[in-house]
Amino acid sequence: MAHGLEPLLHPKTVAIIGASDAPERIGGRPISYMKSAGYSGKIFPVNPKRETVQGIPAYASIKDISESVDTAIVSVPAKIAVQSIQDCIDAGVKSAVIFTAGFAEMDEDGAAAQREMEEIIRASDMRAVGPNCLGVFNVKDGWYGTFANAPGMVEVPPGPVGIVTQSGAYGSHVFGAAQARRVGANYWVTTGNECDVDVAEVIEYYAQAQDVKVILAYAEGMKSADRICRALEMARDAGKPVIFQKVGKSDIGALAAASHTASLAGSDAVYDALFKQYGVYRAESTEEMVNIAYACQFDRYPEGRKISLQTISGGVGVQMADAADKYDLDVEPMPEGTQKKLKELLPFAAVRNPVDFTAQALNEPHLMEENLILTVEEADYDAFIIYMAGVAGSSFTRQGVLDLLTRLRKKYPDQIWFLSTTRVDDTVGDYEEIGMPCYSDPDVTVQSMAALMGFGETFRRGRPDAPPMLPAGALPAPDTAVGEFEAKQILASAGIPVTRESLATDPEQAVAAWQEIAGPVVMKIASPDILHKTEIGGVLLNVDDEASVADGYATLLERAESAKPGARIDGVIVAEMAQAGVETVMGVVIDPVFGPAVMFGLGGVFVEVLKDVTFRLAPFGIDEAHRMIDEIQGRAMLDGVRGAPPADIDALAEALSRLSVFAHANKDKIESIDVNPFIVTPTGAVAVDGLIVPADHSQ
Amino acid sequence: MAHGLEPLLHPKTVAIIGASDAPERIGGRPISYMKSAGYSGKIFPVNPKRETVQGIPAYASIKDISESVDTAIVSVPAKIAVQSIQDCIDAGVKSAVIFTAGFAEMDEDGAAAQREMEEIIRASDMRAVGPNCLGVFNVKDGWYGTFANAPGMVEVPPGPVGIVTQSGAYGSHVFGAAQARRVGANYWVTTGNECDVDVAEVIEYYAQAQDVKVILAYAEGMKSADRICRALEMARDAGKPVIFQKVGKSDIGALAAASHTASLAGSDAVYDALFKQYGVYRAESTEEMVNIAYACQFDRYPEGRKISLQTISGGVGVQMADAADKYDLDVEPMPEGTQKKLKELLPFAAVRNPVDFTAQALNEPHLMEENLILTVEEADYDAFIIYMAGVAGSSFTRQGVLDLLTRLRKKYPDQIWFLSTTRVDDTVGDYEEIGMPCYSDPDVTVQSMAALMGFGETFRRGRPDAPPMLPAGALPAPDTAVGEFEAKQILASAGIPVTRESLATDPEQAVAAWQEIAGPVVMKIASPDILHKTEIGGVLLNVDDEASVADGYATLLERAESAKPGARIDGVIVAEMAQAGVETVMGVVIDPVFGPAVMFGLGGVFVEVLKDVTFRLAPFGIDEAHRMIDEIQGRAMLDGVRGAPPADIDALAEALSRLSVFAHANKDKIESIDVNPFIVTPTGAVAVDGLIVPADHSQ
Repeated sequence: MAHGLEPLLHPKTVAIIGASDAPERIGGRPISYMKSAGYSGKIFPVNPKRETVQGIPAYASIKDISESVDTAIVSVPAKIAVQSIQDCIDAGVKSAVIFTAGFAEMDEDGAAAQREMEEIIRASDMRAVGPNCLGVFNVKDGWYGTFANAPGMVEVPPGPVGIVTQSGAYGSHVFGAAQARRVGANYWVTTGNECDVDVAEVIEYYAQAQDVKVILAYAEGMKSADRICRALEMARDAGKPVIFQKVGKSDIGALAAASHTASLAGSDAVYDALFKQYGVYRAESTEEMVNIAYACQFDRYPEGRKISLQTISGGVGVQMADAADKYDLDVEPMPEGTQKKLKELLPFAAVRNPVDFTAQALNEPHLMEENLILTVEEADYDAFIIYMAGVAGSSFTRQGVLDLLTRLRKKYPDQIWFLSTTRVDDTVGDYEEIGMPCYSDPDVTVQSMAALMGFGETFRRGRPDAPPMLPAGALPAPDTAVGEFEAKQILASAGIPVTRESLATDPEQAVAAWQEIAGPVVMKIASPDILHKTEIGGVLLNVDDEASVADGYATLLERAESAKPGARIDGVIVAEMAQAGVETVMGVVIDPVFGPAVMFGLGGVFVEVLKDVTFRLAPFGIDEAHRMIDEIQGRAMLDGVRGAPPADIDALAEALSRLSVFAHANKDKIESIDVNPFIVTPTGAVAVDGLIVPADHSQ
Repeated sequence: MAHGLEPLLHPKTVAIIGASDAPERIGGRPISYMKSAGYSGKIFPVNPKRETVQGIPAYASIKDISESVDTAIVSVPAKIAVQSIQDCIDAGVKSAVIFTAGFAEMDEDGAAAQREMEEIIRASDMRAVGPNCLGVFNVKDGWYGTFANAPGMVEVPPGPVGIVTQSGAYGSHVFGAAQARRVGANYWVTTGNECDVDVAEVIEYYAQAQDVKVILAYAEGMKSADRICRALEMARDAGKPVIFQKVGKSDIGALAAASHTASLAGSDAVYDALFKQYGVYRAESTEEMVNIAYACQFDRYPEGRKISLQTISGGVGVQMADAADKYDLDVEPMPEGTQKKLKELLPFAAVRNPVDFTAQALNEPHLMEENLILTVEEADYDAFIIYMAGVAGSSFTRQGVLDLLTRLRKKYPDQIWFLSTTRVDDTVGDYEEIGMPCYSDPDVTVQSMAALMGFGETFRRGRPDAPPMLPAGALPAPDTAVGEFEAKQILASAGIPVTRESLATDPEQAVAAWQEIAGPVVMKIASPDILHKTEIGGVLLNVDDEASVADGYATLLERAESAKPGARIDGVIVAEMAQAGVETVMGVVIDPVFGPAVMFGLGGVFVEVLKDVTFRLAPFGIDEAHRMIDEIQGRAMLDGVRGAPPADIDALAEALSRLSVFAHANKDKIESIDVNPFIVTPTGAVAVDGLIVPADHSQ
């Protein structure tokens, strides 16, 4: 079955409501563009005041068109837009592109009108983009449902790239930048206020479209977690890279986003989590987005991160090695034997990696050819970057380089080779023809290669591990505030290791608990009303004889009573002293759009000063938990520093995954969870404290 | 007096030794280029086998030329290059451009030949670039002492930019990228193996040249600290920005650099220090370098970091706000009153900052004009970025935007306004004419503005504070290994606060010291042979009664004897317990090129796991020390976290500065210094331990 957006992106019949005879006016531009681009479908201008529009017979109303209309462009004043939409629905129009502005982006009245529009569209079979959008286009079909100056921007042939943006102005910018970077985007959709079709659904469309291989998306926020997750999953399963620019990272940016769109933007860290989870590349700039899209057009992804750096300039070799370090590529040295052979071939060359074949290759190009052949045959790199300065473009030397590389590409068509050359202009087309993406800036070349490698990893990995099952006897999250002891019992029932402990309600029980533990204990006041126990002296460490345990019980109750008279006291927790280990923090927050997200970080300054934390959407499996652990800055702490033994990372990963499962199962009952500290020892891990804040904690 | 490189960069008479009649050959290219570029000086081909070269009368030898030769290009095989140079010197040639390769970059024989060449040049009055370089050029003069295809790359008029690179191939790349970015470089020098002229001296030349306002430099390493420091100081004093790409940041990069050049590269952190100290912008990529040079061409630097973001697209407003956060710009909100007025003017606009004047400005451009006037008149921004999507370039709207901005630029010629527009091509020339740099990528626009602001700060600041004087009674650094006690006495004499302490040589002295301190003490074994005292139990904390002090003395001696029999024992240090504070680390390393560099970081994981440290070249004043402190990631620790009081940052800054003065005064005597920990309390700072490793510590 065809995708629901098919009529919007491949219409055979197009109506323009508010069609203008003047080709420069908003209602005139789509007609003018389609005429000049040779659109092969039928165009039905709707304008009650004219017989013809731009030479095409006009209709007084959408209802007067006898043929079935795939798409109607709505370019009418805001006050009659809702009626126009209703007319389209009544006339059986399959999809609408609503240019009209003045809705939720404007004021409360506009928002109300948009809600009305939304309701009638949702109740119908018609799909719509907008309102307040710049429309859609499809270069190959000559379909220009837009008033952006799109045909004027088309310079490179349409390729396998689909663009979707919320902002129309920025969508045009991205298309223009893509053209300048030789990226042949074919599809372009701007979703505007998203009363129906959103960025997620367009990604989904691109994920299933045969002629799209690369997806560029831009958003300020998203309203449906399910739709975007499904769309990104489809793209990943189809092996299509998604390059996403999500703005509003900074506090100022988020503030500006709130003043601009009607989107209920999830907090930015949650978007980071989403993108990491689905292997989406998060771009921070237009240039980054189009530079990476450019490489993705070649639709070939490295198997790993081992890079061969080949250069005609030693200095640029160093620069690329620096960049490889920055973007986490593996500059593995050439095999010793190959280095030896290369040294015989090129006595003055550096042969380790980077291989600096020097300007000698200019005089004796066969040396460069033999060098590349040797490297492919004897070494095991996942990709190559070849820096040629001006040599690949200069009229003196260009043909020789092209001939040489053409021979080699025929010999090794599956190798992934990037060419870095001084100028990227029309002359690089011949290199692109033989499957070599061309870049000017060596640093950007390496960055783009790193992005390809990231996609390669994502595609090879495929679907992540399934999350573990919630254990059969798992307790539900509490409905009201509970103390640490109960919180930890609940977490323990969900498979998260906690300290061995008992809740004593008199000194005798406390002593019995101490005897049971058979070693030094920590004693803590247990009260749902006392969250910061240390501040009131509510924790006693290293208690290890009968009298001290009994006295300790009394002391804690006295301190609680004097610090917080009337607090509910559950008793005193008597717990084993946690083993020495690395202090970490796990947590859960509920995002209004994406639901529960699990946080992980190291304790102390790592979280408090450096904000060195990472998030994932719940639930997730063990493999995803390992990836979380691996991406924090302070990762080395877990390997053991200052002679400490390595921490049990598997136990940590399992706990994170199990916490995500618990959070997901209880997503409607909780507001947040803190497991802090969660001590990871050399042979396990244990939650020393836990806090579960129920969703409605006012009760 | 003219600068010594004047004959090299503005020659009136040029000889080409090894001149070729074939314009495409290395020895033919300079002649061909100069002829076609209309070089107005005299060209003297030197070729004993020909009567004329490319139509110009040839000479058999440089000695046959009767006129004084400003520059001789040496394009002969390596085996006769040294003789050629000698001939030039004998003939009174003022400067030489040595293309010939096959010297230090090749092998030991080449290095020896280069040393010979160096010696004869140094002994003469002739200056030289190379060997193994691509030469020099000066576009305005039509002087092309290069075999790079330079005239073929010139597309934009020569402007106020000077380029200098060690690598010739990369130098061409930078020139090409600059041209593509509309950066009109006029001077271009590649220094190759630097047997005489180095990158530093060319920077110095540009710093004093009237027609250079922006300096682009590239190096893999430098050999003379004095020359580069002097050159950067001159550039700063002249208000000329230096944008520097120094490669070899990563371990792999540094390894590759070592295999490529003969440079004695200082360690990379020291280059960071150098660049920060002189306000140099360190670029990581060619694009970054030319994008920033582009803005610098306009020669106007903001007074501060307050930025007004103006946008026709709300989404790009958010994106620019994110970028402003990343690059540390101040997105100060508009004054309340002005926001009110703007809201009346543009009811649908966001008016806080970013100001999103929306596409309404398209229909009513006067609204945008009034908005900008209001913002200039009523707010106090240091610079503006105006994002116009495709509107500033589209044929429908371009003239209106240009007229409007032209009026405003006339009204406010000193304002610093950047234009961000979809395409930067020839059509932006008109905006550049009215003093507005044009960028495509909004993120890059903000990054480049941040760079301008950094230069503005550097130029306003001018010369940094003078370092303090070394105190009159300062002790010299030791000639042989000394223990902690003596090291701290020396540091204390140099003005660095250390713990109050005594060295006791018997238990009675220890007790007396404890009485003197009148509080709990720490006791530490004092031995130049025991560096890691805690590991042998050589430290006792919190000792506070007579018997314990006396016993402690004995215990420490026993432990030292059993852990390290025969170690030299100076006694036992009895020191006050340091006050609670923030643990920091200060250190000194001696760089082979740059001499002593001072390191600063926070203690514990900040240094050990996060490598969060910064360096400066010694000596430096208090202001520079403050800048060091402000740039570490964990800076917030010093402001007090978890309710701790703020640390005495002035005391810390003074100590860093004094350590730099001590290191500078003793640079030939030391190998390194560690002051670790250096505790910064709310009311001072104190070194708890200190280690001075003498330069020749084998003795």
